[in-house]
Amino acid sequence: MIIGKVLGNVWATKKDPKLNGRKLLVIRTTGTAGAETIVAVDTIGAGIGEDVLVTKGSVARNSLGDRDSPIDAVVIGIIDSLEVDENLLK
Amino acid sequence: MIIGKVLGNVWATKKDPKLNGRKLLVIRTTGTAGAETIVAVDTIGAGIGEDVLVTKGSVARNSLGDRDSPIDAVVIGIIDSLEVDENLLK
Amino acid sequence: MIIGKVLGNVWATKKDPKLNGRKLLVIRTTGTAGAETIVAVDTIGAGIGEDVLVTKGSVARNSLGDRDSPIDAVVIGIIDSLEVDENLLK
Amino acid sequence: MIIGKVLGNVWATKKDPKLNGRKLLVIRTTGTAGAETIVAVDTIGAGIGEDVLVTKGSVARNSLGDRDSPIDAVVIGIIDSLEVDENLLK
Amino acid sequence: MIIGKVLGNVWATKKDPKLNGRKLLVIRTTGTAGAETIVAVDTIGAGIGEDVLVTKGSVARNSLGDRDSPIDAVVIGIIDSLEVDENLLK
Repeated sequence: MIIGKVLGNVWATKKDPKLNGRKLLVIRTTGTAGAETIVAVDTIGAGIGEDVLVTKGSVARNSLGDRDSPIDAVVIGIIDSLEVDENLLK
Repeated sequence: MIIGKVLGNVWATKKDPKLNGRKLLVIRTTGTAGAETIVAVDTIGAGIGEDVLVTKGSVARNSLGDRDSPIDAVVIGIIDSLEVDENLLK
Repeated sequence: MIIGKVLGNVWATKKDPKLNGRKLLVIRTTGTAGAETIVAVDTIGAGIGEDVLVTKGSVARNSLGDRDSPIDAVVIGIIDSLEVDENLLK
Repeated sequence: MIIGKVLGNVWATKKDPKLNGRKLLVIRTTGTAGAETIVAVDTIGAGIGEDVLVTKGSVARNSLGDRDSPIDAVVIGIIDSLEVDENLLK
Repeated sequence: MIIGKVLGNVWATKKDPKLNGRKLLVIRTTGTAGAETIVAVDTIGAGIGEDVLVTKGSVARNSLGDRDSPIDAVVIGIIDSLEVDENLLK
């Protein structure tokens, strides 16, 4: 999974019907040297500015309960805290 | 999913028969530090210059209704607007 | 899918039996900032110097008609032309 | 698989129920030019500071015994040693 | 598939039981601008210093004959030679 920050929302009127009713979040990944902006579906109520856990690929659908979904990225957790050994970052 | 802009079309006469009748769009991804150019199948009528949502990998087929498709990228939405908290971009 | 140019061939005597009889092409991807060299199986007769469409991941097998293939990249089209709006590249 | 070092833990109260009881590790990948920070589930007892082997994508679930898991990265080994021919690194 | 050079071996005592008896090779990819170091399972007897073909993702298991394997990278060929048109590299 990757870590990202929720930046906002995406709106799309013309879309695959399987996206209907899905909340689409704009997320900036924070674990990579060059940050990337991706779009993920949210089912747990993540808010703007929160740090989240995003799962990608074909397993993301397992969080949606829809095996026929074309969605490849889903928010599966809102991060409370990250405990990291500072010495390992040196 | 990733965000990209439709740049144009790709034409291929010699191709896997499963691509027959499929509209192939050239898309420049805009969420990454270094933009990439990919090709995705469009089923919702995206036009040149529009910003779109692209899903990748094995789930992309779910948007085509063809489980035996060799296609790994599909346009699943035309983006109307992106609402992003400007303070989070600082 | 990604766009690439066929640079040549790879020869391997010791290999997974499922690669027997498969034509392995060396392909340089051209859509990314930093070009990558990958190897893909060709089933449509792509020649050296031609620009091709390559599909990757588990769906690539669908172009080979072998669900038990360990192949993760296949050439699925020979590109005749790319029509791109020049203004969008500025 | 990729090689990484365990930096610490991630805590998330609001999450997909399928993450309940799973230990989530923050891991810095060490095999790439630009190190990335990812999150993986641990089932073998990896500790902070240890070098581990991480598998990614849909097969990661096979290590969890849960085919319906939305988890895309799992620690599948704690590395004792890496024997590399120094001449090949020149 | 990607091209890489075998650098050495990885040893792990604590690991997923499905890795038991598997030979784990450290491989440096050579087709990318920035070389990456990955770990792949070998079933064809690749030796240190040899150039190999590595397949990645969920299809890699097809080379192991174990659909429940959590392994995401397998060596599927030892490269004898690479015939590339030099003019295309200019």
